[in-house]
Amino acid sequence: MDLERLGTDLLAGDRRALARAITLVESGRADHRAEALALLARVAGAGRQALRIGLSGTPGVGKSSFIEAFGMMLTGQGLRVAVLAVDPSSTRSGGSILGDKTRMDRLAREPLAFIRPSPSQTQLGGVARRTREAVALCEAAGYDIVLIETVGVGQSETMVAGMSDLFVLLIAPAGGDELQGVKRGIMEAADLILVNKADGALRETAQRTCADYAGALRLMRPRPQDPAGFPRAMCVSALEGTGLPEAWAAMRALADWRAGAGVTAAARAGQARLWFEEEVRAGLLARLLADPAMRARVAAAGDEVAAGRPASEAAAAVLAGLYGLGGRGR
Amino acid sequence: MDLERLGTDLLAGDRRALARAITLVESGRADHRAEALALLARVAGAGRQALRIGLSGTPGVGKSSFIEAFGMMLTGQGLRVAVLAVDPSSTRSGGSILGDKTRMDRLAREPLAFIRPSPSQTQLGGVARRTREAVALCEAAGYDIVLIETVGVGQSETMVAGMSDLFVLLIAPAGGDELQGVKRGIMEAADLILVNKADGALRETAQRTCADYAGALRLMRPRPQDPAGFPRAMCVSALEGTGLPEAWAAMRALADWRAGAGVTAAARAGQARLWFEEEVRAGLLARLLADPAMRARVAAAGDEVAAGRPASEAAAAVLAGLYGLGGRGR
Repeated sequence: MDLERLGTDLLAGDRRALARAITLVESGRADHRAEALALLARVAGAGRQALRIGLSGTPGVGKSSFIEAFGMMLTGQGLRVAVLAVDPSSTRSGGSILGDKTRMDRLAREPLAFIRPSPSQTQLGGVARRTREAVALCEAAGYDIVLIETVGVGQSETMVAGMSDLFVLLIAPAGGDELQGVKRGIMEAADLILVNKADGALRETAQRTCADYAGALRLMRPRPQDPAGFPRAMCVSALEGTGLPEAWAAMRALADWRAGAGVTAAARAGQARLWFEEEVRAGLLARLLADPAMRARVAAAGDEVAAGRPASEAAAAVLAGLYGLGGRGR
Repeated sequence: MDLERLGTDLLAGDRRALARAITLVESGRADHRAEALALLARVAGAGRQALRIGLSGTPGVGKSSFIEAFGMMLTGQGLRVAVLAVDPSSTRSGGSILGDKTRMDRLAREPLAFIRPSPSQTQLGGVARRTREAVALCEAAGYDIVLIETVGVGQSETMVAGMSDLFVLLIAPAGGDELQGVKRGIMEAADLILVNKADGALRETAQRTCADYAGALRLMRPRPQDPAGFPRAMCVSALEGTGLPEAWAAMRALADWRAGAGVTAAARAGQARLWFEEEVRAGLLARLLADPAMRARVAAAGDEVAAGRPASEAAAAVLAGLYGLGGRGR
């Protein structure tokens, strides 16, 4: 692969180069990995940054319609928008929103937009690395906004929130006891809760839902670094386009505040440091587990711990064996 | 130290032996650590288990009064109760609830109860290990219930929830906009929200607060493994003792359900496995960082990553250097 050329094309904003670069960081092959690291190091020098917006919503909330309408509004303002999907549960070949390229057919044809489906990987750690690196590549390619969308299965919402500047939760209108679509804990991460489908017969239900969530947000401790009025719950209609400018204005207001207060830079530095530490830890463990005998030993010790063996003692025994310091354990 | 004797006394339920054993697991000395691991391995064989209840509440909610009243009710039923405090933010000598032994003076004098203040450590990882090991020691000493209480600073609530069978959130009555005492996200972990101080002039406010939280809990997705009606919000008064039998009945009902469904055993096995993996990861990193030159290198790389260097590439460079595989990085 001509890495030099790929880097140059990527920095020039070429969409095919961006797609190829993301394929490279998604690859599990060792030689591809080395190339991916070299490419990332090269394009990092450009120092470009996008507004990173995490977006979560369960199936049925109209996420694709929202992204299409929201994305078209942004590209209509001349902004370049990249959409990355994260779906660790996806087993479909080619990723979870392969179909979304069809469903988001207007945005997919828009020259200022780039849509990338989720890779068909199931390991969350791999998905996290790929997504962080894909965000960096989109930034290097000059995108103004990177939308990182997830269906919110398992830990993926927390993971996406941990790599975003803003986190938006999209929910559907529902009445009374139906209001159970939000995973416990994810409201922690939400800066903005958008109740979609506030149109037609569902308009009033959406408004009530919005008021309910606004009430629930008030029950929680405010984040000291944020301006008054956040987190906020608002109504939108992807179908009619209503509420989208207001939602974007709220995102911009919060993003500008955080950028001005130095919160964004500090958060990104902290996220990057955490990512680095995770990579070191994961790398150390991977090297440990690369030895089949050691892998079997760790697995057996894990089973014993699940059955009652003290974890610290089992871990100490495994580590002592590794470094030839003499086993203390059994 | 006579480990054999300590283990025997601990298994016989001797409180002084339990206190000494916890001091041993809290020690940072390498020889103490080896003894602690041997002791844990020895007493694990007894296979005793308590009901582990995590309890969180910010200062001012009346946590000490609640623990005293709740603990006295339990010991009044002949149950043995251990209280472990977790407060990573504590810098006071001797731990955060040294004063609580005075405030909980009835419970502290009760032969069936054991109260242990938080150690004056600031590193969350160390606190987590110590607390998990202290829980195991309390179980070995034959306690029926281990209450793990935390003030809910930073990640400590998540940590405590991750080592409990049940998680209880204690909150204070408050009206309207004052209702901001719950850290975002912690409602995810709560099985039971108890609104304390439902007595005297605050009774009605407490009932309204309880209804508000019940409403907020309904906004969230139920956990499929739990029976209907959980998580639940209830009123209690530590002062008058009202609501405590009902709260205990709810805890028992949920605990029995989970035990019967195999949920508790599976959760404990999963928690233990996770703990083991954390110990292995932390141990590997500790060994890496034991070398001053490597420590400096990791710190420098972390700073570079915070300033923009790609995390994966920096991690790969650090790891390559460690294993003499030739650096790929800068």
